[in-house]
Formats: sequence, C-alpha cells, structure tokens
Amino acid sequence: MPTLADLIRAVQPANPETARLARERQSQLTKPAGALGDLEELSVRLAGVLGSEKPAPHGVAVLVAAGDHGVARSGVSAYPPEVTPAMVANFLADTPAGAGGAAVNAIARTVGAKVYVMDAGVNADLPDHPRLTRAAVRRGTRNLQQEAAMTPEETEALILAGAALAGRAIAEGADFLVAGEMGIGNTTPAAAITARLLGADPAEVTGRGTGVDDERLAHKVQVIREALGRTPTTDPLEVLAEFGGFEIAAMLGMMLQAAAQRKVVILDGFVEGSAALVGVALVPHLRDYLFAAGECAERGHAAQLRSLGLKPMFNLGLRLGEGTGGVLAAPLLLSAAATLREMRTFEEAGVPDA
Amino acid sequence: MPTLADLIRAVQPANPETARLARERQSQLTKPAGALGDLEELSVRLAGVLGSEKPAPHGVAVLVAAGDHGVARSGVSAYPPEVTPAMVANFLADTPAGAGGAAVNAIARTVGAKVYVMDAGVNADLPDHPRLTRAAVRRGTRNLQQEAAMTPEETEALILAGAALAGRAIAEGADFLVAGEMGIGNTTPAAAITARLLGADPAEVTGRGTGVDDERLAHKVQVIREALGRTPTTDPLEVLAEFGGFEIAAMLGMMLQAAAQRKVVILDGFVEGSAALVGVALVPHLRDYLFAAGECAERGHAAQLRSLGLKPMFNLGLRLGEGTGGVLAAPLLLSAAATLREMRTFEEAGVPDA
Repeated sequence: MPTLADLIRAVQPANPETARLARERQSQLTKPAGALGDLEELSVRLAGVLGSEKPAPHGVAVLVAAGDHGVARSGVSAYPPEVTPAMVANFLADTPAGAGGAAVNAIARTVGAKVYVMDAGVNADLPDHPRLTRAAVRRGTRNLQQEAAMTPEETEALILAGAALAGRAIAEGADFLVAGEMGIGNTTPAAAITARLLGADPAEVTGRGTGVDDERLAHKVQVIREALGRTPTTDPLEVLAEFGGFEIAAMLGMMLQAAAQRKVVILDGFVEGSAALVGVALVPHLRDYLFAAGECAERGHAAQLRSLGLKPMFNLGLRLGEGTGGVLAAPLLLSAAATLREMRTFEEAGVPDA
Repeated sequence: MPTLADLIRAVQPANPETARLARERQSQLTKPAGALGDLEELSVRLAGVLGSEKPAPHGVAVLVAAGDHGVARSGVSAYPPEVTPAMVANFLADTPAGAGGAAVNAIARTVGAKVYVMDAGVNADLPDHPRLTRAAVRRGTRNLQQEAAMTPEETEALILAGAALAGRAIAEGADFLVAGEMGIGNTTPAAAITARLLGADPAEVTGRGTGVDDERLAHKVQVIREALGRTPTTDPLEVLAEFGGFEIAAMLGMMLQAAAQRKVVILDGFVEGSAALVGVALVPHLRDYLFAAGECAERGHAAQLRSLGLKPMFNLGLRLGEGTGGVLAAPLLLSAAATLREMRTFEEAGVPDA
C-alpha cells in the first residue's frame, strides 16, 4: 500500500525529449505551419506526457467522486443535500440508453468514455452496486464555517482512495482521466481553497454554484470569510483538510496517480480546479499532466486556470461539474494526438512545402 | 435531376414544435437549469433541425471539395498551386493508419467521421480513385482579378454536384455534414465574396490564408479591390460566379442539400463561411441548419459568424480548412443531442428539484 508521500514522489516531469521531437514533427506535417492552432501545442504536451512523439492514447475514463458537506446546512446551495445521493443513484441507474441517466453518462456514452462512480462520503445509505466504489470514511464533512471539515487522516484516506480508483481505471485501459464530482454545497469549500491558495478575496472567486440568488451568494461569501478566518494555514494539505471536501481529496488523489503513471488529466470545472490547485502546490510537476477542458461559467474558474497556466479548449458556459466538460474535451485531445501519429509529413506525402 | 431552383425551394424552416418541446425537456433534465451552458441551446436547435425532441444523430461525414484558382497566379498565397492536387492525393492515400494522411483524415478517424473527396476543378490530371468524386467542369477558375472566375453554367453545375455528393453521404448514413475545402488561393475569392455580401472593406475581411507576410497581404487586398471594382453586383449567385471558386460553389450545394433533407451542417472556417453567406443570401432559412464549429484564426471569419448569427463552440485558433474544425466539433453536437435523448428528468430519476 503506497503512502501519500510515495504518491507525491512518483510525480515526475513529463518527457522533454518526446515533446521536442513532437514539436519538430508538427512543423513537418502536411499543413501550413501553425494552421492547427492550439491543437499543435496540445499535441506536443501530450507527446511529453505519454512519452512518444506519436502518442497513441485510446481509453478515456471519467471518475465521479460524490460527497456531502456539512456547510450545505448553512444555506449555501440552491438544492437540498438529498440531491447528492439521488444523483449517485442517477449515475448508476439502468436506463434504456445504458447505464446512467445523468449528463456525464450521456456524454460519456457519446464519446466512448467509461464512467466510474465513487462514494467519497455521501450522507446516505447507498445501496450496493457493482459500479459503485465505496471509499467513504464519514457521512459528509463537518461544517467548514465552524471547524475543520476533515481530519488529516480522513484527508489522506480519501486521497489514497482516489489514487487507487485512478490506478484501476488506468489498469482497465484509460490514458485520459477526467476527475469529476457531485456534492451539494461543494463550490463553497472549492472557493475557500481557491481564495486561500491564490491569496484572493473570497468575493472574487465565489460563484453561484447550482444557481443561488444575490442574497444567498452574499451569505455564501460570508460563510467562506468565516471559514478562512478560523485558520491562517497555507499548507496545501491543511487547506484541503480545513475546508474539505471528501470528493475534492479523492480528485486530488486521482490527479496525482494519473501523473505518477504518466497519464493525461483533463480538468473540468471549478471544484476540480480547486483539487488541482492543491495538487500543484504539493508537487509543481503535476501541472505537466493537466489539460483544461473549458472555461466554466463559475466565478473563480478563470483565476484558477491563470494560476495553473492552462488555456481552456472551449468556452461553452458549462457549470455542471460531474466531469462533463472534461469528457467533452476528450475527442479534441485524441484528435490532437492523432495529427502527430497519423498525418504524413510533406516529404512522406510528396507535397511541395512553402 | 433537380434544378438549382428546386434545391433552393426545398430549404424550409426547421421544426419549431420539436425545438419547443426540446427546450421544455432541457428544463426538466437532472441538472441545475442552464448548467449545460451553450450545449442546451445547441441541443434545442438540433431538435428543430432533426425534427425530434430526442434527436438521435449518428453519422458524421466530411465532404472535402478541391479546386484551383486562376488568382493563385497573382501571388496571393504562400504555397504554389501544385499543392492542391498533391493534397488531394494525400486525402486519398493509403497510410498505415488508414485512408488519408492529411489532418482531416486523422481527425475524422478519431471521431468516426467518413471522408468524401471531390475534384471540383483541380488544375491537374488526377488519377482515378474509388473515393474520389469527379465533378470538375474546368481545370481551375479564371483569374478574378481580371474577369469572372466562373460562368453561371459552371457555377450551377458545381452547386448541383455538391448537392449530389451531400445526398449520397446522407443516403450512406450522415446526419451531420461538414463541408470542407482545399484549394491554394481560395481565401482570396472567399474574402471577395465576404466583402461584397457584408458590404465590408476588403482590408477588414482579408487574412493571411496559408500564412502570407505583410507585403503579400497588402497585395492580396489590392487584388480583391480590383476584383470588386470590376462589378457592382450584389446578387448572391452572380457574386459567387464573379469571384469563384468551384469548391465554394460545391460547398454551397452541399449545405443546401443538407438543409433540404433536414440534416445538420457544421460550418468550419472562412472559405466555408463565404459559401454559407451566399447560401443564406439565397435562402435565409438555410441559417436554421448551420452550426459554427470554431472561430478560426483567419481575419474576417468573426464578421461572417456575426452576420450569420452563429456563436462558435470553440476558439482553438485553427486556420487549416479541409473541414478539420467541423469534424472536431461533431462530438460536441452529438453530446448535446445525447443530453436530450439519454438524460433522465428530475421526475424520472426521483431527484429533488430546487
């Protein structure tokens, strides 16, 4: 059983040599230089992560971690906490179209991604299900407004559980991992983490989540101010434990494991972004493995991406989470890799170059 | 054999009733209202085009029309005209990865799109190939700087040839059609068409194409000014004939046929956009069937999209053509349709609504 320290140590830089060869190859492919725009740089980064100038990724997995939040009792969400277990059931449900009736299921089926679901700490009796991974150590976090949301031990347990699920998805064929989440109230801890790690005022990085009105948004910012006021820590693991949540810790573990095994992490929305901020603060090389899907509509996401140095692939105004944006981006990244692998060079094709 | 007038008459508005039902359904699906961002409106438009509140598109086809341009002899491109037939050969080549070694082939294989290639008027002896549709009536257009690029008869012949190929692709299973192009010099007629139909100064809508330098760009704008100066016509078919080219006429035919059969047209870049401007000027209902993939890096493309009233799905800085951007966008639209078709409602899933 690897420890968290082992996991962090295992994250090494992407391969600069395969990235260099890929950049050279992009300049020889049958198209005007630069005509594939951002796909070219994305393909070069993929070549570095996957260790080949002709990267051949295939499997896409989305790992949806669900958890509840003590702070949901403080009136920070437009939805009741009962939605979290109901949505877990929805992710797993048998439907005429296949397994799962949520947005992430529909999109994953379209692009051929596998969906894994984890109970990271839902406040309910979830029935057993062959596709549900149980990792909960507590039914929901404590309320970050009043106390630390998680203990250090709980935090580490969920990070390692996320890493284990990512390891399984990789063993089952995933080259691209999307860490997704579900948890009523979870944009509150995500905003607290983001505010502390970016040194930003909470009002600048706190959004409407599922869609709260102005009054509730002001209340949410106030709750976050109180949480930040409880502790001055800037230690990444302490920040994560103080504010939560279990699914954010699990996503951090997924990202670290993917990077340790030199696989691609496609970042989705704001809550996922908060896990990535903790991860990059722990081990800066993690950044090499992160690819930003879209700029999501949640306030604070753009600031996260700037801090991570990532340019999003699209701006469709998504703000759902679940990993939906990450799964949507997978075909773009698979296509970027395919240009390196399958396009011919000017020389190979006998096309006159400029 | 249908005439051009038949084709234009066959383009009718999308179905407002299925679009209305889809909008209602989006509001009941298991996610916060609006959380799927632009995917929601895209799904509603798809429901209108495909005539079902649960649209089930599957097949994606990219139809690449190639043609040469008399104006290429006027020094408007960074590449010699010999690149056009060489790239047609590249689209058709047998490679270790499958058929075709160009960007559009690599991306189409990744997303499961079929590639059709048309000789719309290439200035070369192209060898026979089972996947090459021959529709050329002339080896390249006349030079638009000095004379009309195409006759009215040539223009109509290529529009109908494009329509016929689209009809075949639809018969072979396509629900989404991407009209793509290859033709050294073709951003020059595209800019001339765009300037005339938008009433814009050529300098505002003329870009670097394959990548010309400042001096050649200024020359290209001057060539377009001279072409525009030859004729005051604003009649869409006359504008198309005056400036060309054969592949633009073919793409117009593809778009009209797709709309006539109530299929989705995914618009790619600037040259494709000029065909769409002609089409919407001929029959405004065509707009219902057009979906913009990305905002491409070619100057003038944003103005085309504004005029067409279309919001692009991504901005990856593509400027290649070939239909690459359109093919890349297909999984996003397939996913949008899947949310309507495969997601459960709050009631179906037993999830508490806000």
